[in-house]
Parts: sequence; structure tokens; C-alpha cells
Amino acid sequence: MTNATGRHFLQIPGPTNVPDSVLRAMSAPTIDHRGPEFAALGLELLRDVKPVFGTTNPVIMYPATGTGAWEAALVNTLSPGDKVLCFETGHFSTLWQAMARGFGLEVDFVPGDWRHGASPEVVAEKLTADTAHTIKAVCVVHNETSTGVTSRVADVRAAIDAAGHPALLLVDTISSLGSIDYRHDEWGVDVTVAGSQKGLMLPPGLSFNAVSDKALEASKSATLPKTFWDWEPMLAANQRGFFPYTPNTNLLYGLKEALRLLDEEGLPNVFARHTRHAEATRAAVRGWGLEVLCLDEREHSGSLTAVLVPEGVDADKIRAVILDRFDMSLGAGLGKLAGKIFRIGHLGAFNDLTLAGTLAGVQMGLNLAGVPADGRGLAAALERLQAA
Amino acid sequence: MTNATGRHFLQIPGPTNVPDSVLRAMSAPTIDHRGPEFAALGLELLRDVKPVFGTTNPVIMYPATGTGAWEAALVNTLSPGDKVLCFETGHFSTLWQAMARGFGLEVDFVPGDWRHGASPEVVAEKLTADTAHTIKAVCVVHNETSTGVTSRVADVRAAIDAAGHPALLLVDTISSLGSIDYRHDEWGVDVTVAGSQKGLMLPPGLSFNAVSDKALEASKSATLPKTFWDWEPMLAANQRGFFPYTPNTNLLYGLKEALRLLDEEGLPNVFARHTRHAEATRAAVRGWGLEVLCLDEREHSGSLTAVLVPEGVDADKIRAVILDRFDMSLGAGLGKLAGKIFRIGHLGAFNDLTLAGTLAGVQMGLNLAGVPADGRGLAAALERLQAA
Amino acid sequence: MTNATGRHFLQIPGPTNVPDSVLRAMSAPTIDHRGPEFAALGLELLRDVKPVFGTTNPVIMYPATGTGAWEAALVNTLSPGDKVLCFETGHFSTLWQAMARGFGLEVDFVPGDWRHGASPEVVAEKLTADTAHTIKAVCVVHNETSTGVTSRVADVRAAIDAAGHPALLLVDTISSLGSIDYRHDEWGVDVTVAGSQKGLMLPPGLSFNAVSDKALEASKSATLPKTFWDWEPMLAANQRGFFPYTPNTNLLYGLKEALRLLDEEGLPNVFARHTRHAEATRAAVRGWGLEVLCLDEREHSGSLTAVLVPEGVDADKIRAVILDRFDMSLGAGLGKLAGKIFRIGHLGAFNDLTLAGTLAGVQMGLNLAGVPADGRGLAAALERLQAA
Amino acid sequence: MTNATGRHFLQIPGPTNVPDSVLRAMSAPTIDHRGPEFAALGLELLRDVKPVFGTTNPVIMYPATGTGAWEAALVNTLSPGDKVLCFETGHFSTLWQAMARGFGLEVDFVPGDWRHGASPEVVAEKLTADTAHTIKAVCVVHNETSTGVTSRVADVRAAIDAAGHPALLLVDTISSLGSIDYRHDEWGVDVTVAGSQKGLMLPPGLSFNAVSDKALEASKSATLPKTFWDWEPMLAANQRGFFPYTPNTNLLYGLKEALRLLDEEGLPNVFARHTRHAEATRAAVRGWGLEVLCLDEREHSGSLTAVLVPEGVDADKIRAVILDRFDMSLGAGLGKLAGKIFRIGHLGAFNDLTLAGTLAGVQMGLNLAGVPADGRGLAAALERLQAA
Repeated sequence: MTNATGRHFLQIPGPTNVPDSVLRAMSAPTIDHRGPEFAALGLELLRDVKPVFGTTNPVIMYPATGTGAWEAALVNTLSPGDKVLCFETGHFSTLWQAMARGFGLEVDFVPGDWRHGASPEVVAEKLTADTAHTIKAVCVVHNETSTGVTSRVADVRAAIDAAGHPALLLVDTISSLGSIDYRHDEWGVDVTVAGSQKGLMLPPGLSFNAVSDKALEASKSATLPKTFWDWEPMLAANQRGFFPYTPNTNLLYGLKEALRLLDEEGLPNVFARHTRHAEATRAAVRGWGLEVLCLDEREHSGSLTAVLVPEGVDADKIRAVILDRFDMSLGAGLGKLAGKIFRIGHLGAFNDLTLAGTLAGVQMGLNLAGVPADGRGLAAALERLQAA
Repeated sequence: MTNATGRHFLQIPGPTNVPDSVLRAMSAPTIDHRGPEFAALGLELLRDVKPVFGTTNPVIMYPATGTGAWEAALVNTLSPGDKVLCFETGHFSTLWQAMARGFGLEVDFVPGDWRHGASPEVVAEKLTADTAHTIKAVCVVHNETSTGVTSRVADVRAAIDAAGHPALLLVDTISSLGSIDYRHDEWGVDVTVAGSQKGLMLPPGLSFNAVSDKALEASKSATLPKTFWDWEPMLAANQRGFFPYTPNTNLLYGLKEALRLLDEEGLPNVFARHTRHAEATRAAVRGWGLEVLCLDEREHSGSLTAVLVPEGVDADKIRAVILDRFDMSLGAGLGKLAGKIFRIGHLGAFNDLTLAGTLAGVQMGLNLAGVPADGRGLAAALERLQAA
Repeated sequence: MTNATGRHFLQIPGPTNVPDSVLRAMSAPTIDHRGPEFAALGLELLRDVKPVFGTTNPVIMYPATGTGAWEAALVNTLSPGDKVLCFETGHFSTLWQAMARGFGLEVDFVPGDWRHGASPEVVAEKLTADTAHTIKAVCVVHNETSTGVTSRVADVRAAIDAAGHPALLLVDTISSLGSIDYRHDEWGVDVTVAGSQKGLMLPPGLSFNAVSDKALEASKSATLPKTFWDWEPMLAANQRGFFPYTPNTNLLYGLKEALRLLDEEGLPNVFARHTRHAEATRAAVRGWGLEVLCLDEREHSGSLTAVLVPEGVDADKIRAVILDRFDMSLGAGLGKLAGKIFRIGHLGAFNDLTLAGTLAGVQMGLNLAGVPADGRGLAAALERLQAA
Repeated sequence: MTNATGRHFLQIPGPTNVPDSVLRAMSAPTIDHRGPEFAALGLELLRDVKPVFGTTNPVIMYPATGTGAWEAALVNTLSPGDKVLCFETGHFSTLWQAMARGFGLEVDFVPGDWRHGASPEVVAEKLTADTAHTIKAVCVVHNETSTGVTSRVADVRAAIDAAGHPALLLVDTISSLGSIDYRHDEWGVDVTVAGSQKGLMLPPGLSFNAVSDKALEASKSATLPKTFWDWEPMLAANQRGFFPYTPNTNLLYGLKEALRLLDEEGLPNVFARHTRHAEATRAAVRGWGLEVLCLDEREHSGSLTAVLVPEGVDADKIRAVILDRFDMSLGAGLGKLAGKIFRIGHLGAFNDLTLAGTLAGVQMGLNLAGVPADGRGLAAALERLQAA
């Protein structure tokens, strides 16, 4: 029996539930992207987006989805044959390093179990050993959307610094920005890669590179070919609020409203809300007697929770039951985790009661799919929410 | 701590949560209400709205809210000094009979305890006694929005018939139409009064009179003054899809989409969903050890549940805590029930997980307001939902 | 050949072209009309709508279209048998006096030729003669939507004053408010009747009564029956930003945006724009060798222009050609002017180039319908616009 | 005096005026891009977009603006050092060949005067001379947005065929697709580059590559690096209606509605409408005594008209006057035409009366900016429109 009335519960770890005020903002008529009204909008957004990244440096905005911003981070800072250090923290870090290989970079891909973040210890070890400074960049996925594990970027930074190594630090924050505490400047990140469709509460279609001075310096000698992703004409045109080619104006309208919403709530409150929801979700998972994928207490994600299903159970079947019966979308296991986990997104425009409904749906769906999940799960989550 | 992110939970018993597709439909440009495009729309709506009332007779649509449709039902069928039989089933039936008095009608207002519907037995008794047929109309509120009690209209009809009495039967379905099984023709209702903002899932602003042949006949000799509410020019203009004065076109766009949604789900499924949600809600209330206001098992409302709070507790304080902490609006006690109950709306565009979130919020809010409500309430509700 | 791409030209004299920002505002989710967020909205609107009427007195807002506000003006101030003075200025003044008769009022309906406004001289004469003060109210349609003639309300006021007569002055501003200079307080109007769908740039569904102290005083003894239209509970509930019954919340969202737009442009600029467009339109009409219906230079409407077609030509055929070929709606001749005129609406959210497109369409349509209209019409209009 | 009420006239040659139904469609909630509902949408769009390109082959859709689709066409078919033949038809062909150079391609850039399209004769000559088949691709901008000149792609195709040369034919249709007759399959185009924000009537943010079998074959050996633009994973994922990375779902909603609108009007009617508007515009320009930039009668653009201003006049000043006085945006002269021309966009969702308003605004603006433009311009345009 389908139950598709009322609002769909879009509890994948992104795209997230777009606030209706953002959707309305996006439906304003498109304007001349070379006129004075656009310039004012462009300057405002290029300024106001910075605090979300924790930076006072430029943030480049692409009319493209997040995969493009990965590509931009690489092609603007590196040259064919350059060596980069990557960590197998999950599906997306695996894709990013594969992209790097595709662009002719040499990748040192540190293997991982998909249940831990990038190891600051390994960073220290690798960089200390690299006395010739052949490693040009360290690539870290801040929050692995495929696993719900958040790498400790500040610790990675400290490890790089301790090694006295000049490598650039490139960080993917696609599913953390605007949800999990992040500090581009303070943590000395060189390129922060981000997208619109998660914590920024927008539909997909915008992506970002926040760039340090060091990254800008590196871009001057990087020789990987680029046009669409090229920072230089972007930064030049951005000076006056414009873009070197047609921007996607209507998503920019949405960004303006999304930034207003984040500012209204206050970033510290936004982060605290995500932390609370993540804690409540883990309490529920444990209450059901199930296991959270992330193994390190320091690395639990604030934006999603990956749940291991019992041996012999197909996680995708659970998801299908929940979609069919309760009109809720959950995230699938990706890559080597296919069928073994499901992922609960609890990020973006989200509140306690929607989380309660989400966890109620998971609880009922588990039972219906033959995985006993008694009410202690939801009860533990509500206890956490009630205590806030 | 306010928690106003994500979607507000609008769990008053109407206006209800308007589906975003209805809101989008309403935002189309207004058209010429005297042109051919409008005529086609008007004819379509006037036809397609009928099944929702369970009628093949005309349904008159007013560009006004529900109180106006009450007035219309009276002024089109009655004359000054006419006697009507009303029942004190709650706040709204009290208001309707007061309106009748204001128009110079003589009202026999049968007292009630606000915990039962209109009594078919009393109808039988009163009408049988009225051998002179001085009672011109029996007025019943199908679903008392202030109490969550649904009067048994079919039984009232049977009582009138058994008495062999010619009184008109006027029924207010403002919070039942499109939520609770209702049959204008089969039950021999003469005027059905309805509004847009409940089961029809629209914003407020449209209201309706479905009219029987007998009501139309009565309208020819009714002498209460009227212009805006006058059926006659309405029915004349409606023949060609038009209205005698400016209609509120954009709500009509929304009505078209709302009728499509109801048709897509199927009215029997819509009613079953409301019944299920009402049962789950009552299970929760009883699990918390609280009392449902409605006392007759045959009269529980499918669209809302009124909950009595313990002696000494201010129900409005509970509502305030829930609004503040969980961004959920619940209905207040009205009139003589002020402060003694709160009302949970579970009607309109609504689904299992939103109900789960709603009940989780009530449960947490009760606890925070000092009314112990342990998890057995929500658990019982989920059991009902899971079993569906 | 139909040409229904791009924006429809809705050039009837209302409903007018609703700004897309108003439509977007209206598509926000409906909120609890008894909650604190609504109260704040209500108080804001009840305050900010006043300057548009030129009043510091209360403005009552009905969730109903304009015909209802006519009815409200009558039933709140008058009693059965009261005498009112009305002027046959066109179709709508004829309807209003008919409504008055329907409510049992005695109407002195001064005949007119539908090409002039209400005569201040006749007002003076009638009131001076009425030494017994049997006339309780003078009803004037400020801008006759059916003719494009604007009555001189200030002069009517002066005539009443000169006669030293206590009659109330009731004025319909449905197609003038927010388009043509209007001053409720300064002109001593007692009830101003208005609607949302013209100069206020909203879809239809809201209507208004601005009320003087004298009108409020009169309402205390007026005995026409009323509930929905009753001022007294409205004014009481409005004190706290609420309404005595369900308001149409989403149109109120639109009103907020519409008031913002009017304030941003500035009412004097709004009036000047309408005057300019009306002048340009008359220049076009005369350039085509056609006659403007309005005969008194002091009474030309700023919001619409009625154009007489040559003898033997069916004005509705011209309109049909223009709708078919150019996707533009024009107003029909109403009542005794049916087929003899068409009406060009140039009010609301409107600008010079849309007017130019409108007049170009009329010019081409006239030619296609066999009424020669050479380019001197449009050229004269553009000359006026260019000179602004 | 600013006149920013009513609708802005967005008469740049793209982004174009987005129909409100497309904007509404885009404001629907974002859905799971890996779920069954999305798959159905994806398959539908990937199928229905083909006829607009005149192809039965795959059309790849990128969540990025048009510049990216240029890049995609190059990196998927070519290898470093490959030679391409380009034509200096204006600003955009100049940018495209510069991009090609940036990717290490060798460009034979045939000089041009920005007043003619790509010469089929030169194509014939160059390819005939290239007996070694070192030229791997011929790049043509179908409609030069910077000049209003439409290259004769069918003739270019014939020239390639006549030369018996295997070069690929890459065509940019960014400002022609959905406006000017175009036939990917019939004309033997290998890659058609397109964007959303012109004839497709969407906001910017989607771009396209329609690909021939020959292009797909070439892509197997092309060695330019690529990930985001890579056809291969796109085509693989598209089989099931999905995308290899996050698509921009909300623009896809808009695309669905835009395709519906194009289908409803019928592509031949769409093309005829653009032709009619272009003819009317040229008639106006000549009536004002000004010169159309395009010099070849066979190459006039159906989507925009570039107008040369008299010596000594700054075209941008004219545009500024028109924006300020009439709230209309026109296109600037780009590159070497800066200040010398302005461009009137007459494409996308557009109709006769909006064109009339547009031309009226240009006429008045020219006069106000000191370039005498009497009414014969607009009159000539209306004559053309009236005759349709």
C-alpha cells in the first residue's frame, strides 16, 4: 500500500529538503546577467557566502554540481604527473582519487575500511617521509557521504604542519558545509570543495571552491588544461559581481535566501542542531540493536548516519519497504557497502519532529522488513531531543 | 530554545498543510474571469467538485470563507421568524445558531455537553412533536471542529424521515468534507456547507453550498435579504462556467489541483487514511493516560482529536511549549473548553510519518510541560500505523 | 492563428496583471490564523493598508470579493426603509443600487448617460431639498469600471457640506484605489469600498471597507441583518491582529508584498504613472479617429479607457479578433453598452512598454476587424510616453 | 525617471523570458536522484529532448551552463595536438577557438568581419586542400549570439561531404536551438552544443551535447582528459534514466514543462514565429534608418537582431537610457563590437505584442538618446505582424 500523501520524507544525505522560501526565491524571473541588478546580487553573494566557509578569501561559484568542483580543485592547482595523497574513506574519496588519476596525477591512495576518516597519523608519516616534497596535495573528504564518517581536518592540518611539508590541503565538504563545523581559514585549507544541495539547502546545480592564497599562487603554475573551471577569469569577473560565462541565476536567488536562513539561525546553532539530530539518530540505531557504521567516536557525522544491517538482510529491501509504505527515501549503500547499510540523512532544513517522523519510519520499516526493532530505539532518540 | 527550521508542523484542525502542488497551481497568473479560458475552468470545477460532496446536484462556490457559506445556507432557504432546530455540539454549532438568531430566525437550541454529536433521538422526538411543521430546518455540524465529535448525519436523516417531517436538513461539513465519509445525496442533505481549508487542502477563501432540489425549491420563497450569497444568479451564471461577480480565480486553480489529488488517491482511500490516523492518535492519547474528549465510540472524528488535559493544567501552556520547542501549532480549546483541551489536527495532506512526528512532539511537549507522557503513547500509535 | 506564447496581455480593467513577487508571496504555506505569527502579520497589514486609502481610521478586510464589500457598506450603516441617493453612472452603480433595493432600502436613482460621473450639482440640489434629512446615504462609484469615468468625489463632498446635510458618503473605489488619487479622510468619505484585484495588484478574493467615525456611529443603530459582514466583531478581533472567522491567509501574504511595492514606488508616482498611461491611451484612441466614452475632461479615468466603436461594428468581435490573434484580453461593454464599446485596462502592475504593446495590439486588431486605425494612434501615445 | 513597475522587458538574446509555468515547475521539491521517480523522469526527458535537436541519437545533459558543453564537445572527441577548423563569426566563435587552443588543439581560425557566417566555400577549400586529413573537426557557431548571424550549417555539411573529408562537424546551437530550424541528424552534425536559457525557455544551468555515432566512435580514442564532461559514464547511467553524478533536478522539472510547451506549439510554428519576429524587427531597424549588422540575407538570425548605431554614438548609452526609462534590457556589443551595436533578443517565450512593446521602447530610447528614430520603424514592424 502506497502512502504518498503529504510531504515526501527525503532523508537521503542530500539533496536535502529545500525550504519552500528557497524554492520560491528561485522562481523569480531570470535577469540580465550582465546588468547592474545582477552585479549587485553577485557582489552580495560572493561576500556573504564566505562566512559559511569560515574564510575571508575568495569563494568561486560554479554553475555545475559538486563533481565539477572536485575537478576544479585539481585542475587549477596541479600539473600532469603531480603526486597527491588520498585516503580511502569511502565511495566518494575513491571516486575523487580516480578522477585525479584520470587527469594524469600520481595518486598515493591510502587504503581504508570505510569506517574511519583520513588518518592524521598517516598524513604525518607520509609527509615526513616525503623529504623531496613530491607530494603536491593532500586530498581529504571532510564528511564521507557514503559512510557517515567525518575526518578530523584540523588534525590533518596539524600533521601537515608538524611535518613542515608544503603540500596543499584540498578538502571536500560537499556533505558537511553548513551542517558540520568547518573553518577554511583557521584550519589552513587550500581548496574547499562544496555543493549547494546539502547543508546549503538548495537544489543541486551550484558548486564552490574556496581558495587560499597559497592555492591561488599554485594555480599560476598549474598546467592541467581548463576553461570552464579556470579560477583566473572567474576571480577577474567576480571583482565586479559578474561571471566569465552565463551563471545559473535562479540558483543564485536561492542561495541568497539560503544564506539568509543560515544567518538567521546562526551557524553555531545550525551545527548544534545537526549534532543533536545525529546523537538522537545514533541513540535510536543502538536502541534497535543495530550498529552504526562509523567506528571512531571522534568521527561521527553530524549530517548522516550509516546503519549496518544484520548479516543476511538486504539493506535495499528495507529501503524499498520504507519507500513503499511510508514514502520516505533513505540513502543506499554505495560501492562495496551496497546492500549492507542504509543511510539516514538528517541535514539541511530539518527539525526535531521531522527527525522523529523519520526514525519512526525507519523503526516501523525495519519491523516490516523482518528486522525486529522495538520502540526503545525511537524512545532513546526522543529522550535526546526532549533534553535539548 | 526555538526550533524553527525545516517545515512547521501545522497540526491545528485547519487550515491544513497545503500541498506544494496546490500552492504552485495557485501562483499561476490570474486570467479574465469573463473569457473562454475561464469558462472552461469553471465548468470543469463545478462538475468535478460534485463527487467530493457525494452529489449530482449543483455545488455553489463562494469567493469567501466558511462562515459565509453558513450564512448562505440560511438566507437562501429561510424567512424571518422561521424556526430551526440546532444542537449544542460545540463552539461552531453555537456560533451557527447565534448567526441564525441574528437573522431573525427562531432557534430551538438543544443543549449539549460538547462531548457528543447531534442526537438522532432528539431529532426524532422534536420533529414528531412538531405536527404543525413549524420547524423549517434542522442544522447539524457534521464534524465539530472544536471537539472532534462527528455527528451521525445518516441517523439524523433517518430520524427526520421516520417523523415524516418536511424540515430541511442543513449540514456543516467544513472540517469533514474530503476527510470523513460524507454523502449529500444518499443522506438526503438539503444544504451542505463546506470550506476550502480543511480536507480540500486549500488555503482558506473558498466556501461551498451543495444544494438539493428541495433546497432550491425552498429558496424560491425564502425572504431573508441576500445578494452576495444569492444562489439564483450563481446558478444562472454557473451554467456557462461563470460567476455573477468576480470569483477568486487563483483559489480555483488550487481547487483544480486539489480535486486531482483527491481523485488520484481515491476518496475511499482518503477516508481510510483519516480513520487510521485518528485511531493511531487515540491510541497515543490513551497510552499517555489522557482522555479523548469525544465520549461515543460511534462519533470519533477522523480529522481531529481533542485531548482533555488533567485538572489544574492549562492546555494552552502545553501548546505554547510545543510551539516554542518543536515549532508545531495545535488547536486551542474554544469557548467553554478554553484551557481544558488541546486539539490535534490530522486531516488533509498528511501521512503516517508526519503523524508520527506530530505525536512525538505532543509526547515530548507534555513531558516538558509537566504532564508525564511516557513512550507507550507513541508506541501504541506506531503499532496501529505499522499494522495498516 | 492563435499566438499564445509569451505572456498573455490581461488588459481588462481588472483583475490586473499580478506581479510575480505577489504570486510568489501568496504561495507560502498557510499558517495558524490564531497564532502569534499571524497576529503580527495582521497588525502590520491593518496598519499599512491605511495610507493607501488616505485614512488613519480602521480599514476592515473581508475574505471575499468586492461585491461583498458593497453589501457590507450597506448592511452596517443602514436600516430597512432608509433612503439612499445613487447615480446611474454605469453598470456597477446600477448593480449597487439594485443591491440596495434588494435589502429593502429606498433608492433615489438619478438617471445618467453612462458618459458622466455623479453630478455634484445634483447632489447639492437633492440634499438641499431634503430638509427632513430622509436621505441617509449618498452612494458614489469613484471610478466606473464599466465606462472609464471617474466621479469627482471631493466635489460631491463639498456639495454635501454646502447643503449642511448629515447623509453618509459611501464610495466604491474598486477600480480606483491604488491607481487614482483618493483621500478617504480628507474628502470626508464615510465608507470606502475596495477590492484586491485592481490597483492593489492582487488576485481577487479580498475586499475592504474603510470606515469613518461617523460610519461607525451609524453602525450602532443600523438594523439590516449581518454576520459575515458585521464590522463590530471585525474591529474587536482586529485589535489583536486577528479576525472573527477564518481569514484568507495567503491573499494576506500577497497584500503584504503589494503594499511593499506601492510604498516602494510611492503613491504619488503610482498615480502619475496611471495618469500618463491614461493620457497616452486617449491620444491613441483619438489618433485612430475613435471616440473615448467619457465626455467630461475632468472625469477621465486613470485606470481604464472605454472606446466607442463606429456604428454598425460589434465591439465584441474586435475583442475576439484581438484575443485570437494577439492573446490579449480587453474588457467588454457591459449592460446597455454591450457591443458598443471595448475597454482597455491600464492599471495595476503596468509599464510604458506593456502599454505600447497593448495599444499596438488594439491598433492591429482594429484594422484586422475592419475598423481602419492607422499608425497615428500609437504614434501619439508614444509621443506622450517619450515625453514623460 | 525609473519605470520599474510591471514586467521587466528582458530583451537580451538570452537568458530569455522564462514562462511562469516553467518557473513553477522548477519550484517543486527536489527528489531522490537515485530513486524510481527520478528514473522515470530521466528516461522521459532523455527521450523527449531528442526531437528538439532533430535527432534520434543520444542527447547528453550536463548540470552546467553552455560553456561547459563547448568544452565537452572538444574533450570527448579530440586529442592534444589535433587540428580544428574554426571561423571568426563573432565573439563566441572566438571564445570557442580560444578554448580549443587552451586544450592544446591546433586551430585554423578563418578570419571574419563579424557580419557573415561561416563560409561553406572556405570549408570546401580548406578540406579539399587537407588531403592528409589532419583537420579532425570543423567547429561552427550556428547562430552567433554576438552578431545575429546564422551560419548555413546544411551548406557547411554539403561542403564537407563534397570534399570527401572525414572531419567531425561540431555545431554550437546555444542561441538557435528551439528558435531556428535545426536538424542534427539530417545535416550530419556530429556534436550539437546547446544550452537551456535561450529557445528552451529555461533559466541557465543545463547544457547539452547531441552526439552522432561517428562522434561516439571518435570519443573512444580521444585522449583529452575529462571526468565531469565524460560522455561514456553519462551514456551508461542514462540507460536507466540516471546520471553518474548529481543532476540538477529542479531544472529538469523545468525542462519537462518547456518541452511540453514547445510540443504544444509545434516546432514548425515556433520557428515561424521567430522568423516573423526577426523580420518585423529588421523592418523596424530599417524604418529608423539604421543598419542591421548581418550583411547576408541568407544569414539573418531568427532569434536576435544586432543593430549598428551611427558613428559617434555610444550604443551602450542608448541601452542605459532604455534600461533607465523603460526597464528593458538589451544586449551589448561584445568584443570588437563593444559600443558599436546593441542587440535585440526576440527569442524564447515571446509574442507579437511583447515585440511591439520592445520595438516601441527601442524607438523611444533612440530618440531620447539623440538618435532620431521616427515612427516608420515601429509602423513597418506592425505591418509585418498584422499581415501574419
